[in-house]
Amino acid sequence: MTNIAFIGLGNMGGPMAENLIKAGHNLTVYDLNKDVVAKAVQAGAKKADSAIAALTNAKVIISMLPNGSIVKSLYTGKNGLINHISKDVLVIDSSTIAADDARHVATACKLKGINMVDAPVSGGTAAAIAGTLTFICGGEVEAFEKAKPILDAMGKNIFHAGASGAGQVAKICNNMLLAVHMIGTAEALNMGTRQGLDAGVLSEIMKASSGNNWSLQVYNPYPDVMPNVPSSNDYQGGFMTNLMSKDLGLAQELASKSHSPIPLGAAAGQLYELHKYNGQGTKDFSSILQMLQEKS
Amino acid sequence: MTNIAFIGLGNMGGPMAENLIKAGHNLTVYDLNKDVVAKAVQAGAKKADSAIAALTNAKVIISMLPNGSIVKSLYTGKNGLINHISKDVLVIDSSTIAADDARHVATACKLKGINMVDAPVSGGTAAAIAGTLTFICGGEVEAFEKAKPILDAMGKNIFHAGASGAGQVAKICNNMLLAVHMIGTAEALNMGTRQGLDAGVLSEIMKASSGNNWSLQVYNPYPDVMPNVPSSNDYQGGFMTNLMSKDLGLAQELASKSHSPIPLGAAAGQLYELHKYNGQGTKDFSSILQMLQEKS
Amino acid sequence: MTNIAFIGLGNMGGPMAENLIKAGHNLTVYDLNKDVVAKAVQAGAKKADSAIAALTNAKVIISMLPNGSIVKSLYTGKNGLINHISKDVLVIDSSTIAADDARHVATACKLKGINMVDAPVSGGTAAAIAGTLTFICGGEVEAFEKAKPILDAMGKNIFHAGASGAGQVAKICNNMLLAVHMIGTAEALNMGTRQGLDAGVLSEIMKASSGNNWSLQVYNPYPDVMPNVPSSNDYQGGFMTNLMSKDLGLAQELASKSHSPIPLGAAAGQLYELHKYNGQGTKDFSSILQMLQEKS
Amino acid sequence: MTNIAFIGLGNMGGPMAENLIKAGHNLTVYDLNKDVVAKAVQAGAKKADSAIAALTNAKVIISMLPNGSIVKSLYTGKNGLINHISKDVLVIDSSTIAADDARHVATACKLKGINMVDAPVSGGTAAAIAGTLTFICGGEVEAFEKAKPILDAMGKNIFHAGASGAGQVAKICNNMLLAVHMIGTAEALNMGTRQGLDAGVLSEIMKASSGNNWSLQVYNPYPDVMPNVPSSNDYQGGFMTNLMSKDLGLAQELASKSHSPIPLGAAAGQLYELHKYNGQGTKDFSSILQMLQEKS
Repeated sequence: MTNIAFIGLGNMGGPMAENLIKAGHNLTVYDLNKDVVAKAVQAGAKKADSAIAALTNAKVIISMLPNGSIVKSLYTGKNGLINHISKDVLVIDSSTIAADDARHVATACKLKGINMVDAPVSGGTAAAIAGTLTFICGGEVEAFEKAKPILDAMGKNIFHAGASGAGQVAKICNNMLLAVHMIGTAEALNMGTRQGLDAGVLSEIMKASSGNNWSLQVYNPYPDVMPNVPSSNDYQGGFMTNLMSKDLGLAQELASKSHSPIPLGAAAGQLYELHKYNGQGTKDFSSILQMLQEKS
Repeated sequence: MTNIAFIGLGNMGGPMAENLIKAGHNLTVYDLNKDVVAKAVQAGAKKADSAIAALTNAKVIISMLPNGSIVKSLYTGKNGLINHISKDVLVIDSSTIAADDARHVATACKLKGINMVDAPVSGGTAAAIAGTLTFICGGEVEAFEKAKPILDAMGKNIFHAGASGAGQVAKICNNMLLAVHMIGTAEALNMGTRQGLDAGVLSEIMKASSGNNWSLQVYNPYPDVMPNVPSSNDYQGGFMTNLMSKDLGLAQELASKSHSPIPLGAAAGQLYELHKYNGQGTKDFSSILQMLQEKS
Repeated sequence: MTNIAFIGLGNMGGPMAENLIKAGHNLTVYDLNKDVVAKAVQAGAKKADSAIAALTNAKVIISMLPNGSIVKSLYTGKNGLINHISKDVLVIDSSTIAADDARHVATACKLKGINMVDAPVSGGTAAAIAGTLTFICGGEVEAFEKAKPILDAMGKNIFHAGASGAGQVAKICNNMLLAVHMIGTAEALNMGTRQGLDAGVLSEIMKASSGNNWSLQVYNPYPDVMPNVPSSNDYQGGFMTNLMSKDLGLAQELASKSHSPIPLGAAAGQLYELHKYNGQGTKDFSSILQMLQEKS
Repeated sequence: MTNIAFIGLGNMGGPMAENLIKAGHNLTVYDLNKDVVAKAVQAGAKKADSAIAALTNAKVIISMLPNGSIVKSLYTGKNGLINHISKDVLVIDSSTIAADDARHVATACKLKGINMVDAPVSGGTAAAIAGTLTFICGGEVEAFEKAKPILDAMGKNIFHAGASGAGQVAKICNNMLLAVHMIGTAEALNMGTRQGLDAGVLSEIMKASSGNNWSLQVYNPYPDVMPNVPSSNDYQGGFMTNLMSKDLGLAQELASKSHSPIPLGAAAGQLYELHKYNGQGTKDFSSILQMLQEKS
């Protein structure tokens, strides 16, 4: 049983915190939104009046926040947490942020002798609730080994991608590839059905052939080929176009900084931005199929 | 045991014919190239001096040819085969050609009362030799049912995609999607490794996550992540850039004809054409990774 | 004064025919649509009951038709015009069609000893009415020299691009380039104004710098920078997205056939197709700017 | 006659400084490279041993530096110039840097009561030597009015694009558009010539039509169509691919920050990066034509 300070109880952070409580950990939580704090308290958490207050007695700090500026501000801003953390505390940041931001915080932690792991997740709110998230971690081996048993309470697959920032890099590489094969899958299914093929039959053929990918396996973008996926529910729920667009922005930034050509990744980023601007930002990202279809 | 006329004994057709012989069928073969004919004869085939001559006693005709013009010329050109085929003979064309060309031949066959199945393959020469090709078929159900036991001798997966031409459509949709996720995979691996990640570790993470696709599973484009793939053999062997470029040309043509937007498919087509023009046409198509890398 | 048979009196052909009449030529016209024929007759033309009937006494035939199939059918189809034209008649086709279709008709004409010039136009309906079209011609020098004085009555610039088909090639090259710089101009103006710049000031700066292009000079896509352009009239009138999309389809076909990479031309083709499918097909093609803008 | 401190005497800054001297201004110069300082001294400049030392008696400071980090460090870094400038001194930065970096320095200047103008240039080294540069300025009207007579000594066109940073925004918008129409022009010329047209004839036709743009007018990318351009000199000299690639990186950054879709601008950025990585970084940017051509 570990004393954990948990900062950020949004759509992802909330259920993640609850799974830690279920696993027997002692949680002290902080969020600006009182409703989500109340919900966590009901699940068994102690509430703190500030992020700093949440640190008391904590051996592990977990943060799950919307972007890199907020993460940097929390840890390394004026009166940031790193000035209040003792050396035996492990910092785990599960936010999806730029690798450079993660490295910035990790370096600041290291200067104070503190271990930090960047541990962005893959899997969405459903996996957060089910405790089946994938964690993709960056940091030193010992820090990762300490983080792993904690993360096990929230996830199914826990990967060590490499040094600090590597978790963010791997997450962004993965999501860029996801965007690319999702659009490619939508293009293939749209073209095939316009030529008279059945979407389900074509999906089966490509899944059993070299076109096989995750979109075809568990997240078919064509309506009514699979039950219980956003495309069969008018593209509600799932992973919003807005969020995919944000991730592709991080991918473009990473590519520019590392001078890595990403011709299809960049094109995917532009397409998702156009889709978002066309009023589809809150639909699931598999709705990119609709961008390809003639509007009546 | 069936009497089969086999036309076209190239890199794919040759081993396909041999597998039919091994399965006990009686083959009469024809090809302009005497060397490949001699090889088939050695394997047990009878040779014919013309395509028409090969038809004698045949109950099934299989053709495996380089492009649509040749296929159309063979069957529906001046003194084409359809003028020499009786109604109980089944025509199977395994060439990869435009769906419209396949439909043209199928329609001409139908007017003569002949059944035709378009049955392009996926899997490359290795699968042709091993008899583990995937056949993606178009045509009427009864024709497909008659073709299936013959195709079983050459392949592992035999799909019925739909009406005439549907085999070609599904094949091209699949290969376009393959090109897209291959390039996407190459971009992700190149960017990740430039950021210090290990290509193998990053591959494992994406394979276990939503980036998962066939390229990561069995055909990793990054050298030395997998044994026995072209990327670990200086991109020799496998599926040539030239051939992928040809297939993406067919995809573009199909998209234009069916008014189907294929933003990433079109971009992939352009990238493979640039790669080909840069002198990489005979390398395996996973060599697209090298296009992304700085030349020293 | 020349006796001219004029086939095809659409939005472009109608005013072109009237300008020929104004210049003193004797026109016999044919079109399936009786209303446009009546209008031409009112302007001074004689009407014919068929395309063949229009040929009587004609020394020049001009056609202005929607696509290559119709042009081929008119001249080289069953009972096509080339069977009814004497050798001293000059054929001018001003339709925008594939270069290969133009060459097909030109070759058929040549076999009969007839001269043909492909002469697609640039400039739109306004220029057709004003008689200020640009004609881009393909064909032998003598044929071009004979066509020029006739075309002068309808246009301001008459170019000889090269051999048969060259007019179509040059037209399509030009329109592909137009699409590319129009989208580029829209992107630059949208990005600049989102950063607080005035669209008119930014346009002036780029026009005086290396960004200078026709879109900035006479067809600014940003509303209210220029008077009397479609962007200042809710993108009504002008050159429809549908037509630009058709021309980019011809460009893609030409590129595929000539194995010419067109990475931006292909991307432009995809963007215009998406724009068309998003219900913007009948707006002027400069409305692509709206595709880049956030919908409220 | 004005006392001017000039910082940065590279390929552009060197000749710019000389033109100021020729116009009668008193220059004190600073650069890390002693050779370029010696050259300026020979032309009539006084040399300073540090950037701060160059400020003595200066009424205007002009900087011409390679990137935003260096500019920020010069002015607002530790012991930066803004701590040594009096309020009546005008700061002009002609470096091409991110708009946000320009705004950062301008804001810091303003807090000290100092006026700053961002004034990036267009035109390359030839125009720097000839004194015919285009200056694209951002800053308050009064500051711009004070800068203009100074800039007149180095340039032909002096534009006021808007508030601080607007000069950089307009410059980047322009260069992105330049890249797009240059690639589009190269694609059109390559496709047309592959279809048998003469590059010069096709260029003339498009220049007189709606494809018209600066590349066709003064910088034709096809060899030997124009004399005295890089394409007619094996793509030596001119504006390096490396620099265009840098500018497109700035464009991508600006687009991401302002949430502006730039589908063709992004594609152009990727193509120039691939071209650069293919060993063409030091060739003129019009050499992108070669990327489209088959290598023998």
